[in-house]
This record gives sequence, structure tokens and C-alpha cells, in this order.
Amino acid sequence: MCYEGALEKLRSKGLEIDAEGFLETFTRISSIGWIEGYGSNRLALSEHHLRARRELLRELEGIGARIRFDEAGNIIAEVGVGEAAIAIGSHLDSVPGGGRFDGAYGVIAGLEILKAIVRSGLKLRHRLLLIDFNNEEGSRWSPPLLGSGLTTGVYSRDFVYSRVDVDGVSFGEALEKSGFKGSQANNLYLNPPRFYVELHVEQGPELYREGYDIGIPQGIVGLKALEVTFKGRQTHASNPVASRRDPVVGMSKAILRLREYALKNQDRLRVTVGYVNIQPGKFNIVPAESRIIVDIRSYEPQMLREAVEYTVKASREAGEEEGLNVEVRELWTIERTLFDRDVIDTIESSCQELGFKCKKMWSWAGHDAQNMARIAKTGMIFVPSLEGLSHTKEEYTSEDDLVKGLLVLAETILRLDKM
Amino acid sequence: MCYEGALEKLRSKGLEIDAEGFLETFTRISSIGWIEGYGSNRLALSEHHLRARRELLRELEGIGARIRFDEAGNIIAEVGVGEAAIAIGSHLDSVPGGGRFDGAYGVIAGLEILKAIVRSGLKLRHRLLLIDFNNEEGSRWSPPLLGSGLTTGVYSRDFVYSRVDVDGVSFGEALEKSGFKGSQANNLYLNPPRFYVELHVEQGPELYREGYDIGIPQGIVGLKALEVTFKGRQTHASNPVASRRDPVVGMSKAILRLREYALKNQDRLRVTVGYVNIQPGKFNIVPAESRIIVDIRSYEPQMLREAVEYTVKASREAGEEEGLNVEVRELWTIERTLFDRDVIDTIESSCQELGFKCKKMWSWAGHDAQNMARIAKTGMIFVPSLEGLSHTKEEYTSEDDLVKGLLVLAETILRLDKM
Repeated sequence: MCYEGALEKLRSKGLEIDAEGFLETFTRISSIGWIEGYGSNRLALSEHHLRARRELLRELEGIGARIRFDEAGNIIAEVGVGEAAIAIGSHLDSVPGGGRFDGAYGVIAGLEILKAIVRSGLKLRHRLLLIDFNNEEGSRWSPPLLGSGLTTGVYSRDFVYSRVDVDGVSFGEALEKSGFKGSQANNLYLNPPRFYVELHVEQGPELYREGYDIGIPQGIVGLKALEVTFKGRQTHASNPVASRRDPVVGMSKAILRLREYALKNQDRLRVTVGYVNIQPGKFNIVPAESRIIVDIRSYEPQMLREAVEYTVKASREAGEEEGLNVEVRELWTIERTLFDRDVIDTIESSCQELGFKCKKMWSWAGHDAQNMARIAKTGMIFVPSLEGLSHTKEEYTSEDDLVKGLLVLAETILRLDKM
Repeated sequence: MCYEGALEKLRSKGLEIDAEGFLETFTRISSIGWIEGYGSNRLALSEHHLRARRELLRELEGIGARIRFDEAGNIIAEVGVGEAAIAIGSHLDSVPGGGRFDGAYGVIAGLEILKAIVRSGLKLRHRLLLIDFNNEEGSRWSPPLLGSGLTTGVYSRDFVYSRVDVDGVSFGEALEKSGFKGSQANNLYLNPPRFYVELHVEQGPELYREGYDIGIPQGIVGLKALEVTFKGRQTHASNPVASRRDPVVGMSKAILRLREYALKNQDRLRVTVGYVNIQPGKFNIVPAESRIIVDIRSYEPQMLREAVEYTVKASREAGEEEGLNVEVRELWTIERTLFDRDVIDTIESSCQELGFKCKKMWSWAGHDAQNMARIAKTGMIFVPSLEGLSHTKEEYTSEDDLVKGLLVLAETILRLDKM
């Protein structure tokens, strides 16, 4: 253990953090829906997600928190008094086969802060909120960040409720059944907190490899998702190779060129092809069509634009070489988010106060914080993650690092409360 | 029209072929399940396939053919007397989005020959059979050629009946419901025909490009289907590109190298990747795994072996370059089939007799003929197909070519009957 000093510092300020209790609660709740050899299976509003949320409610009721749900089914728990509020938040849903830490860590750390405030009898000037956002991952209903999108007024209720999962179930339908549907009056944009802080595992290997305790994102990178469709000529596998117009070949060329381009610009850019759909997809048919989604991320708007242009160009060129028609469609754009300077500085001084080595960085992944940044002064705290592995069962953060993040969150809350 | 002379020759032998009637019946039955912009939709034992089969039965009953079903649900219709039999056959099922000619052409041409024999009152020395094979394509139940496989004793009943489609419906179950289940006693291996002839559109552009009327396959190429799985490390799209172990990149490299290899050996080899499966297949997740099926065909057993070795080597090398584990599994092998010398020669002399330009060639696609070759003296007749397009709605053979194939089949039957 290497956080005893930090624990002691917080204790001296009247805040008693229970590191062991936090780890126990985290392990218990993050294990719900865990399948050995597969990973976390808590798709939004699925049975396992609902079980985890009910467990969270039980914990919150145990400390007498005031609990409400908003129109998106986000859980908003509140302790203390005060006109303004400081909110902590994250999410309990997971991608299919995801990790134990993504999301659940931030929620359970927030829970421990609320518990500690109540336990310690500390009077803050702000009310303290814990928000468990619904459908953050977007694995069941696309796009991601639906819950925070609705409560912050980014998305309309009609848009969010009409999203449909692979089984044809709409978000609105599932929410109705879940018991977590709340009223519009509880939507956060009607009564926004002053500050919002989200604690999360990093989703790249930066802190882990460079040996930092804590990362402080300056913001969240911009993202473009492009759908590229290569249309060839469907025919039988008996057809001579030279006379084919094979979309799988064109697609493969484009994927390799995109990879080269991403490597050349690797400090400022991420390019990913994680979705591939071949039609008709039979082993003995040269396909008619091959469709990919290209996920492009950068913290530099100019780099993002260039990478989009390169994707279009490389795909068209590969297509031309193979006699294919290439269609490119922009699926969605997420603008870069810049976090609040005051919150960033507060997190940094909290790290210094507690003696933890921290690094300014970027979040390469989306978070509810990017929606919250529109209605509150927002920042995030990152902890190291083994090799940066994320959205996989191999995701891992040590208990020491988990507790350090928790303590920095606690110190940050205490400091923001004084602002 | 450029087959009047041939029609006349057959007429002079006492066989009155109704070319117009054949084209009308062909158009009518091959249109069942046709969807504009999609193509043929007659998956085995689906509603449309069953409708087409019932229509065939109606036609057969109209000429007083004796009809039986075997254990695989193949339709076997018979006219005439004689101890030995000559069989004509093909299939009415289609791939999803397939062409109008594949299979249906051979069945309806066979139907016209039976009709013509009855119409003309011609007495053959052999009984004449028309076989409509069930589940030839293998699009609903894999592997292909299930119907001919069971009736010729290549596959066991248990194997065939237990095949399951994507909806979990077994072949046995669907057959039971279809009304086409017949008895084991009707399986062809118990009472094999002496000859089997199958008329089909070519599935490459050979005849079409070189201007032949008729193709005479020496046999059917050998086939190996390999499943190659590239296993990487699942992580979030936020992860730096250089530190990924991305199975989609390894797969793309392997696909392009296989393509190069196939081009180098294009006269003797076909290599196709028509099936690609990415797990978990989310746009913002670097996948854990990417699985392809490689379809390899050659008429030279040595070339086939070398191509399989190259596939394993190229996949492993691409995998190593990207830090992936590569698993290769042989899914199935179909040995090369050589057709019967007498039947081949008879088809050739029939073409000469009717004045049609013919070419000895290979069938690069599988056909029920390869199973029938195990129990009967077997051959096939090919007609040109536009650019060799096959298993696609664009598949096209002119009416003239369709009739020429029909007439060669008729002449061939007359000649085999004398052997």
C-alpha cells in the first residue's frame, strides 16, 4: 500500500475514506454479470445491468441518500444541502465481453465518497450528487452516451426513446419495463450541478507505461465514424480470379493503407476498423458488397479532417484498382470537448497535495463527461490500466491504483466545494 | 434462332422438342421466388422452393409420369419401361439472391425431354428419370449436395437430417413438414440408373468469352475449405495503433497475399474469401478475433495441395507480423470427380451431330453430378453464361443458348439409350 499518507491527509480534513470497504463493494457490484472467459455482460437495461443498479440503490438507501430518476433512466442520488451541487458520475452498463473497471469504477468510487461524507458527518457547502448514467456504452442502443445526452439536452426524448436494439426493442420500451423511468423535471439541464467530475480507467497505455499514478485529461478527442461500402460483383467461387470485382480485396487494401496512415500519425491519431459486414457472406460466393465502419479520433481538429479525407481517398483508390464502386457516408461526428480549466487545476493540485504523480493527457474515448461539460464545469480523473486494454475482459487496474484515484476524487471534491 | 436444323434432326429421329413451350415453362417456374433487385429466393424447402416443386409435380402429373420421393426429399419422376434407366437431374433450390438459371434450367430441360418422349410416343430401351435434388446449394443447410449425398449413400441419414439452419431448424424437421419426405427404398443407391446427365449453365466465363455453344466438363475440380482464425487482443479504439494486435489487419494482409497467389496460378486455381466474421464486431472496439473461410479449387490435386500449404503459410506469416495467434482448420474436402469417358464422348458426338461448337473444360463448381458419378456413368453439359456470373441476380444465358443445351441433352439421351 502506498496511499496511507493520502488517506491520513483526508482524515485530517475530516473525511474518513474506507479503502477496504470501497474495494469490497466495487468487487461485489462489478462482478454482477461477469462471465468467466467472456467478461462483463451488463448491456444497458439487461437483467445483469438492472441487478447491478438495484444493488447500487440498496447501498444508496443505506446512507439515506435522496434518489431520483430522470427521463433517461439515469440514477441521481443526492446527499447534503446547499444551493449548488457537485456531481460525480459514471455508468454501470458494459460492452459485451467488457472489463470489470470501465464505468463501474467511477460509480462505486462516487458511492464511497457519498458514504464517507455521511459517515464523517462532514458539512459541505454544496449538495453532492452521484449519477449512474444509462446506456453509456451504446452497445445495446446506438449511439453511446444516450443517458447523459438526454439529461443534458443534447438529444431529444423522441430520438433517445426510439433507438432500437438488435432484437427490435426500443430504448423507450425497455426503460418503461425497467422501473428506472423518471420524470422530465429531473433532467439535469433543468437544474445543472455546478461541477461534474468523472473518475475512470485510462483507455490507452500511457499512464501504465510511463509510470504515472493519475492522468488529467485536457478534454476528449474528436471522433468521426465513416461507413465505407465497397460494391463489387457477386459471383460464384468458380469464377476466374482475374475477372472478379471482389469487394473483400478492395476492403483489405483500404484497411492496410489506413493502418499505415494511422501509424505515421500515431501520436495524434487513432484509426480503427472494428465492424466488417460482407454480403451475402457465403464461403463459396465472391461477395456483392463489403461494408466497414472506420472510427477516426484525434485531439487536433485539423488532423481529424485530414484523416477523414485520407480515408475517403484511400478507399476510393483501392476501390478503383479492383473495379468497385465505393460509397462513403459520415455516420456521426463528435466534436472535441475541452474540460474546465478550474477543474483541471483543482485535480492537479489535489494530486500534488496527496503526493501522487500525475500527467496531463487526452481522453481518446468518449465519456458522459463530454455531455456534462455542456451544462457544468467538468473534469475527469484517470488511473492506469494494464497496457491500456479496454473493452475486454483483460482490462486490469491494481487495487492500489483504484484507491489512489478514489482519494484524488475525494480531495478534488473537497477543494471544489471551497470554490 | 440458330437451332432450327438441330430441332429438325431430332424430329427426324422421332423426337418432337417444343422449344417455345420449354422456354415458357422455364420462365414460369424459375420466376417463383424471384425478387426484383434481389434475385432468386428459393432456399431449400422454403415457401418459394416448395411452390416451385409443386409446380414441377403438376407438370409431371400432366404427362402421367410415375413420381416418388426418396429419403432426402428428392423428387424422382419416371416415364417409359425398361430394366435400366437413364437419369436427368438438377435442382430447384437457389442461393439467397441467386440467378434464374442455376439448377432450374437443368430440371426444366429434363422435364421437356420427358414431355417430348411422351408427346412423341418414342419407345426408349431405358426408363427415363427426372430427378429434382433437394438442398443442392447448401445455403440453408450446409454442406451443399445434401440431397444427392443421401440418395447416393455418400452421407448417412442421421448426418443429413441433423443439419441445422441459422434458425435452428433441422433438415429432418423441415423435410417432415414439407410433404416431400419419401422412403429409404427409393434412395437411388439401391437401384441406380445406368447413366446420369446434368445440364447446367457454366459458372465461369469460358464458353461465353470464347464463343462456344456447349461445354463438356471432364469432371469437377477438387475443393478444400479452410477456416482461418486470427486471434488478436480486444481493446478500445482509443488504444494507440502501434501497440495493437489487430486481427483485422492480419486478416487483410493474408487476403491480399492469397489473392496474389491465386492470380499467379489463375489457370489452374481459384481462391475465394466470401465469409468474414469479426468478433465482437463493434465499430469502436479493436476486435478480439477475425475468422475467414478460404475456398480453394483446382482440377490438379497437386496444385490444390500446394495452395492449401500456401494459405496456411501466408496466414501464419501475416499473423506473426501482427502479433496474432492463427488457427487453421480444414472444414471439408471434396475430391476431384472425373466424369465417365463414354458419356463425355456421347455428348461430344451429339454436339457434332447437331452442329454446335463445343469445348472440353472443367467444372469449377460442385454439382449433384459428383455424387451421382459414384453410382452411375455420369456426365454434364454446360451452356454459356454472361461473363460467367453465377450465384447472382445478374446471371444470364440467352434463350438460343438455353435451347441449344436442351437439344444436346435430348440427342445425348437418344444416343445413350442405344448403348
